[in-house]
Amino acid sequence: MRLVEGLVYGGDYNPEQWTRDTWAQDVALMRVAGVNLVTLGVFSWGLIETADNVFDFGWLDEIVGLLHENGIGIDLATPTAAPPSWLHTAHPEILPFDADLYQQPPGGRNAWCPSSPVFRDYALRIAGQLARRYGDHPAVRLWHVGNELGGGNARCYCDVSAVAFREWLAQRHGTVEAVNQAWGTAFWGHRFNTFEEIQPPRGKHGAPSPGLFLDYERYSSDALLAHYRAEREVIQQFSEAPVTTNLMVGPGAQIVDYARWAPHTDIVANDHYTLVDDPDRAIELACSGDRMRGMSPDRKPWLLMEHSTGGPSWQQRNRAKDPGEIARNALAHVARGSDGAMFFQWRASTAGAEQFHSAMLPHAGTRSRVWREVVELGGHLRSLAEVAGSRVEPARVAMVVDDESGWYLQHGLKPHRGLRYGHELRAWHKALWQRQVLADLVPPWADLDSYDLVLVPGLILVDDEVAARLSAVPERGGTLLVTYLSGVCGPTGEVRTGGYPGAFRDVLGIFTDEFYPLQATEEVPLDDGGVVRDWTERVQLDGASAVISYAGSSLAGGPAVTRRAVGEGAAWYVSAALPESSIGAITDRLVAETGLTRTVEAPAGLEAVRRLGDDASYLFLINHRDTAVEVATSGLDLLTDEKVGPSTMVPAGGVRVVRESATSSPVRDRAGSSQ
Amino acid sequence: MRLVEGLVYGGDYNPEQWTRDTWAQDVALMRVAGVNLVTLGVFSWGLIETADNVFDFGWLDEIVGLLHENGIGIDLATPTAAPPSWLHTAHPEILPFDADLYQQPPGGRNAWCPSSPVFRDYALRIAGQLARRYGDHPAVRLWHVGNELGGGNARCYCDVSAVAFREWLAQRHGTVEAVNQAWGTAFWGHRFNTFEEIQPPRGKHGAPSPGLFLDYERYSSDALLAHYRAEREVIQQFSEAPVTTNLMVGPGAQIVDYARWAPHTDIVANDHYTLVDDPDRAIELACSGDRMRGMSPDRKPWLLMEHSTGGPSWQQRNRAKDPGEIARNALAHVARGSDGAMFFQWRASTAGAEQFHSAMLPHAGTRSRVWREVVELGGHLRSLAEVAGSRVEPARVAMVVDDESGWYLQHGLKPHRGLRYGHELRAWHKALWQRQVLADLVPPWADLDSYDLVLVPGLILVDDEVAARLSAVPERGGTLLVTYLSGVCGPTGEVRTGGYPGAFRDVLGIFTDEFYPLQATEEVPLDDGGVVRDWTERVQLDGASAVISYAGSSLAGGPAVTRRAVGEGAAWYVSAALPESSIGAITDRLVAETGLTRTVEAPAGLEAVRRLGDDASYLFLINHRDTAVEVATSGLDLLTDEKVGPSTMVPAGGVRVVRESATSSPVRDRAGSSQ
Amino acid sequence: MRLVEGLVYGGDYNPEQWTRDTWAQDVALMRVAGVNLVTLGVFSWGLIETADNVFDFGWLDEIVGLLHENGIGIDLATPTAAPPSWLHTAHPEILPFDADLYQQPPGGRNAWCPSSPVFRDYALRIAGQLARRYGDHPAVRLWHVGNELGGGNARCYCDVSAVAFREWLAQRHGTVEAVNQAWGTAFWGHRFNTFEEIQPPRGKHGAPSPGLFLDYERYSSDALLAHYRAEREVIQQFSEAPVTTNLMVGPGAQIVDYARWAPHTDIVANDHYTLVDDPDRAIELACSGDRMRGMSPDRKPWLLMEHSTGGPSWQQRNRAKDPGEIARNALAHVARGSDGAMFFQWRASTAGAEQFHSAMLPHAGTRSRVWREVVELGGHLRSLAEVAGSRVEPARVAMVVDDESGWYLQHGLKPHRGLRYGHELRAWHKALWQRQVLADLVPPWADLDSYDLVLVPGLILVDDEVAARLSAVPERGGTLLVTYLSGVCGPTGEVRTGGYPGAFRDVLGIFTDEFYPLQATEEVPLDDGGVVRDWTERVQLDGASAVISYAGSSLAGGPAVTRRAVGEGAAWYVSAALPESSIGAITDRLVAETGLTRTVEAPAGLEAVRRLGDDASYLFLINHRDTAVEVATSGLDLLTDEKVGPSTMVPAGGVRVVRESATSSPVRDRAGSSQ
Repeated sequence: MRLVEGLVYGGDYNPEQWTRDTWAQDVALMRVAGVNLVTLGVFSWGLIETADNVFDFGWLDEIVGLLHENGIGIDLATPTAAPPSWLHTAHPEILPFDADLYQQPPGGRNAWCPSSPVFRDYALRIAGQLARRYGDHPAVRLWHVGNELGGGNARCYCDVSAVAFREWLAQRHGTVEAVNQAWGTAFWGHRFNTFEEIQPPRGKHGAPSPGLFLDYERYSSDALLAHYRAEREVIQQFSEAPVTTNLMVGPGAQIVDYARWAPHTDIVANDHYTLVDDPDRAIELACSGDRMRGMSPDRKPWLLMEHSTGGPSWQQRNRAKDPGEIARNALAHVARGSDGAMFFQWRASTAGAEQFHSAMLPHAGTRSRVWREVVELGGHLRSLAEVAGSRVEPARVAMVVDDESGWYLQHGLKPHRGLRYGHELRAWHKALWQRQVLADLVPPWADLDSYDLVLVPGLILVDDEVAARLSAVPERGGTLLVTYLSGVCGPTGEVRTGGYPGAFRDVLGIFTDEFYPLQATEEVPLDDGGVVRDWTERVQLDGASAVISYAGSSLAGGPAVTRRAVGEGAAWYVSAALPESSIGAITDRLVAETGLTRTVEAPAGLEAVRRLGDDASYLFLINHRDTAVEVATSGLDLLTDEKVGPSTMVPAGGVRVVRESATSSPVRDRAGSSQ
Repeated sequence: MRLVEGLVYGGDYNPEQWTRDTWAQDVALMRVAGVNLVTLGVFSWGLIETADNVFDFGWLDEIVGLLHENGIGIDLATPTAAPPSWLHTAHPEILPFDADLYQQPPGGRNAWCPSSPVFRDYALRIAGQLARRYGDHPAVRLWHVGNELGGGNARCYCDVSAVAFREWLAQRHGTVEAVNQAWGTAFWGHRFNTFEEIQPPRGKHGAPSPGLFLDYERYSSDALLAHYRAEREVIQQFSEAPVTTNLMVGPGAQIVDYARWAPHTDIVANDHYTLVDDPDRAIELACSGDRMRGMSPDRKPWLLMEHSTGGPSWQQRNRAKDPGEIARNALAHVARGSDGAMFFQWRASTAGAEQFHSAMLPHAGTRSRVWREVVELGGHLRSLAEVAGSRVEPARVAMVVDDESGWYLQHGLKPHRGLRYGHELRAWHKALWQRQVLADLVPPWADLDSYDLVLVPGLILVDDEVAARLSAVPERGGTLLVTYLSGVCGPTGEVRTGGYPGAFRDVLGIFTDEFYPLQATEEVPLDDGGVVRDWTERVQLDGASAVISYAGSSLAGGPAVTRRAVGEGAAWYVSAALPESSIGAITDRLVAETGLTRTVEAPAGLEAVRRLGDDASYLFLINHRDTAVEVATSGLDLLTDEKVGPSTMVPAGGVRVVRESATSSPVRDRAGSSQ
Repeated sequence: MRLVEGLVYGGDYNPEQWTRDTWAQDVALMRVAGVNLVTLGVFSWGLIETADNVFDFGWLDEIVGLLHENGIGIDLATPTAAPPSWLHTAHPEILPFDADLYQQPPGGRNAWCPSSPVFRDYALRIAGQLARRYGDHPAVRLWHVGNELGGGNARCYCDVSAVAFREWLAQRHGTVEAVNQAWGTAFWGHRFNTFEEIQPPRGKHGAPSPGLFLDYERYSSDALLAHYRAEREVIQQFSEAPVTTNLMVGPGAQIVDYARWAPHTDIVANDHYTLVDDPDRAIELACSGDRMRGMSPDRKPWLLMEHSTGGPSWQQRNRAKDPGEIARNALAHVARGSDGAMFFQWRASTAGAEQFHSAMLPHAGTRSRVWREVVELGGHLRSLAEVAGSRVEPARVAMVVDDESGWYLQHGLKPHRGLRYGHELRAWHKALWQRQVLADLVPPWADLDSYDLVLVPGLILVDDEVAARLSAVPERGGTLLVTYLSGVCGPTGEVRTGGYPGAFRDVLGIFTDEFYPLQATEEVPLDDGGVVRDWTERVQLDGASAVISYAGSSLAGGPAVTRRAVGEGAAWYVSAALPESSIGAITDRLVAETGLTRTVEAPAGLEAVRRLGDDASYLFLINHRDTAVEVATSGLDLLTDEKVGPSTMVPAGGVRVVRESATSSPVRDRAGSSQ
């Protein structure tokens, strides 16, 4: 089932803020822009259920009708992100508690405990009322459960949660003795006699058990997922429209374990906002898109449910987008598998917490750059209608990503407390992006058989089954690359002894007997001319060869990067936080040795991804450089409806989407320099 | 009524800390220094009301008598900043709660909830007791209600405050529906059905409604003002002496809205401490003085109630004052309208929280630089006795300042969360200060008719009436200059749509369709050679002309500073956080175009202000430079009792106060360079 | 009584974490390494007392027996650092409260209020059970009360503590009026009528009374000491083995006042961890060792109870030790008086909070650098067996250190809030260390008669008796050097008036009338070419002469360092935070004038300390440089069993311990440069 004809275009629409006159103007302007789907009702609970069990659907009927009359589809939200004030007043116990047992006051979003039975009842009732009333309305194309679940309530530490946590533990571990074993409670004398003695990892002081921490993260993700699933089940009683919820997926680690949620949605949906002070934010966007695709069952198209036309307002200095950046961002998501592009929100609020957040229709109205680019993007998406439903060309590179490892790596007393899980992940993805090599970011349980190169950055928690499957990659002629701290622990967080990285020692043919984290100002030179910061290790060869060695510190002469040949395959270990130059050189070698094909041959900064339809292939070319780039391709540029070939010039900051009639050929940078 | 003959000189006197022998020594040394007014009783509650309703005035009678016998006037404080320990023990509920509902323990200052009826009763009883006993004592020249009201209790979030807030809301808005409208509660689904559902903006998480935030700021200021007024009314039943309280006024924004308090005092009084790490602290002092004058009804003389002779102790590295800085600071306040200069405190404490705060009589006693300068300053003030009661020469420049805008600009999810309200305010004031051009810092409701130039920096909240009055300035031939973010919102904080800066689009002849806040390291060049940081905008001309344009970023070529000619008048818009050089050049042009006269012609750093008495004018010349400066003036230097003319040389770091016999003439910097 | 034959070697042993098989392997490897003492039972409470008053000693009997059979002595811990989960569940009231009245959740260490009578009862019962059972076991050589007392519970602010604090106050001060006097409660009106009105210094806001703060620090230290002493008394009923607890002593200030605890231990024991980002961490280690010796009664040998073989895990970037650093650190402790070297912990944990803390037997097992160096160190300590029991050569330099002054200096509203007590202390100790001059770090109540040079850095609290004893040093021909802020206050924190540094004005022959703390970027040049940051003063000579003067700022020309000759003696005042160069030059002059002998003549970085046995002297030479150093000495190098003389070459990073047959002679740096 398609949500709409062609690609989705639209955004959150919150008409509660506006008068009927504005509604009419809104719908007219939506048609100008080509909007075909809006998310409705996210914050409407208190206006629909005006008091406990008192419902007023009149205004909602009206706007649903108006949208439908104008051919605009509806992504109807259950309004459970926004409990009404009367509910918080009657049941303040549903408000979440933080780790310090400070109860969050009302006034934010998702101000409810995920394990609260009281809230669950109210939420399911309103969801059911909506589903019953609009479940078969022809305008309702999609259900949107709550909003950014976990945004505000990812963790609750209240006593109700404590009870739910104990039940979760009993289900996962069976006995309290198994919990003691998993968490190593003998250390520091934290042994439990009964489940009742176990508390959530509350408190700002001290360093609670890493096992307790890890299980509370898992429990918290599961508790929210259970809430989502309960709402979904209610909706499914009344509606055959697909159901989803807007995840908040970046490279990792995220606040909850969305990869484990994705199978429970009918289309995986994402809210993505670039961080305005990140110079590589376009690459981060691509990385998040590759992860969305990697977590979507069968790499099916997913949906970009929210992004922004300009500055958000929750960051420090909310940068406007550069000229053309709206289209580059939206189409990069589409290139990587989104079947459309939606924004938060349609019309800029004039009041409330996000009154300065950008929108499709800004405060200045239609006489604005943003509106012009929004209309232009609408046109682009219409031109790309035939792309809808196509899959992204299968990647031959996989990166294994797991938020559980991210949480564990970044928590508590670690060898280096400043390491961030996303750092290596993004560094290696960036090297591939710069070379137009596509990677799927997949969870550890993904089928890896179709990948020739598998990268494992910082996967600190690895169970035996995953370790075995990853170790099998070189055996079948593939290439495995593992970075530091991967495989150091088992799934409970227990360290694998006998030398790091325990789970991968054998396949890698090395072992590390001691970590050498670096101080903030320390640098260690490598024999390839690069310089390492943050992390080094003392590695012993045990079958592998050194590819790069340390050239300084007490590790001088020891291996920094190793490679073990395994028949046609190879197993690499990266023991250091390598500089970009070293990662680039290794990536070049991996591409060559693995026989990977670049999507196009172009300088870094020319983003290129191909989608494959039933009858045609579509080459997305997005130029992030400030000079035009010539790319070998032939076919029809769908955005300009012009034939191109044997090459096309992608202007600085510009986008081309070519329905291909021929394969790509070598490229030359108009500026004369190659990457 | 005059508080004393001539100018006031003195400080806080806290004799509770000392023995009778020390009292005798104190009074003798006060006479040496020329002290004629001391603030007495600020922390005396527990020593006067030794237990609930048990009073002991003996010691206070004694010190009051001793001071009176020695001709030293008394500024008698109600001791309500310092509730006794027995009161906190009996009524812990009066202790304020912070936004996290953490109740402040006793042990600080102003440890009481401004809306507590329990505290109010106790406070009015002790105030009444004091007023009854000393209301007609001839030594009591002034009443000093509490101390630095709001210092410690500017905001309380307790349930008593919540009730009081709801009453305040009902009074301001009438209906809960009006509150919903004002705050835009439809967004995020925060609609209230009843006042009882409204909570103070508690909490450390999330981003509560900006409307709620703003009204809580207003309520909090009003709650403290109500307390002050209640004490004042009790005093007025027994005494005809003037009543005031010591405000804490700087350029803005302050913790409560002192400009709205000032009309409720008989003389506006200020506590002012420079920030020791501020290289422009002398200019900040002048700015605060200009604001004191601007909030004093009819620009009447005000009173500097506290400043310091050296390092405070509440800052990080409590710098001593430079040689001569004591006199420069004190006389700069006098120049800008203070009828005297007082210090915290007379004798340095040896114990307690402020044991290392500087004082008139330091720990080292009379064999100290501070004491020598204190005695010297006393002599200066005696020499200036005739200045008392005179007004500062009327300024032709007004700067519109409003703490409500300051609060709003700095709070919550804004386009740039690091902007500080005082930044532009101080930058433009500094340019005037460097050019010896006087400005009044006035509230938005001030009469602006007498000003030729009106500057409006960062006035984000503007109601229609203020917008109209400001827009009228160019119409009558004046010059209006508006900086970025001014006029963007209405008085409830609602954004004015149609293009920024909504309230001033028409008069300025421009509109901005999008803000371009800059990242921390970003710089955008201007075509005048300057470089902008922090803030830029995309401005469209709509009747105005560009004076300065952007020369970089995607805004290159667009207007940065615009000017719209309006008959004889002009309306300027400054869309960027300009560098000092650009502000200086614009200021030069404004001075020239508006025909402003500089107080004297002198290089930057020679501060010059004139006070006008009934029969004479007094030119204050304060040299902050490290070289002497020659200034054209003729008359009698009151500090040295020497005739000067046709010019006088103000030594490096020195001060001259000339009773003028002629108008000023051009100036030359002894060092040969002009500013 | 000797704990073991020769020097102690071992670590914490927590067998609860491991299986019986591992126990057997552990004991075998301990024998390989030469371990002769392990700390047992630190975290075992819940495994011994498995439920309230239900005891299971079986497993403990077993491991005690196994160790004993293998000749490994036991330092048996009372497990009171680790209350069992059942106890926290039954009595949550024992969990400590922080200053914000936030109650610490279970899950850390020492999670109990030191003043809790409930916890005291449980703790004494388990301590008694252990003492009764193992009190006369031949393997039990030492009792280890709790663990790092104060680590997690140094301050508790609960109501039980409040009551205990009031009792402590009554005992110390007698009357509430005496408390008012001591704390100067007249200031800010904080006078108390009854003890019941006094609260602990709770709260995150405001600036509570410094006197209250100081007494709460004292009370807190005393409360924990009382707990320790209660456990000790119970043990002594059943055992004649010595009793101690592992302090956490560094240069100062520490969390509790360990110097006042030391007399209550039978052997003073320390846990010492270097801070991995401290470039001078080897000198800090030496400084801590010198302080341990200085607080041990009669300078008796003490015991290093914990240190690490590599990275801890509680720091930010847990650096591994450099090659040889394990031996250099362990033997530097021994050189400075420790009769052995112990580590936390024997075998690296695989789970729990400290799973990444280094250990004697690391995760990688015996095929690791750490294990090799651990075995090597065991050999060294066996070679040094005869050193056990010997005393360190008496120092002729004393540094007076007092944590009470440290607390006070660093707390609250001070002239410069960024000053750290340890800064001057370490700077002067470093200059001595670089010159191979030994200093004892002694408490203010120590007998100073045997010292020729007494340094007094930052001793802000000085009572009259201490002031008199220090002032007597020059009178008897010694040299006294006092740095800024010393002597400024009396023992209650009250400022001594009349000029700083009150207590030492007379002996120093100067007074300071005003402090001049410097801003973060300010620098003031000296006339010796050095540059001062952070702190300067305006000093007046009153009998002393200037040795170094300020050459900039408004203090230019004024004295920075002064010296007053007193017969054969001298009294120096250092008014500034001097640079290393100035401190070095002064130290050279002090060494020369005082006729101090350096332990050896060697360049800075060659650490040299001598221990004196009954029949022999032992010269420890530890080379922290990266080149070999030749040192004049003759005798037998105990580590290599080789004769040396007339000089020995200490290799880069190496250690020599020479049983001396002759006195030392001049030294030449092999690199040709002298320090």
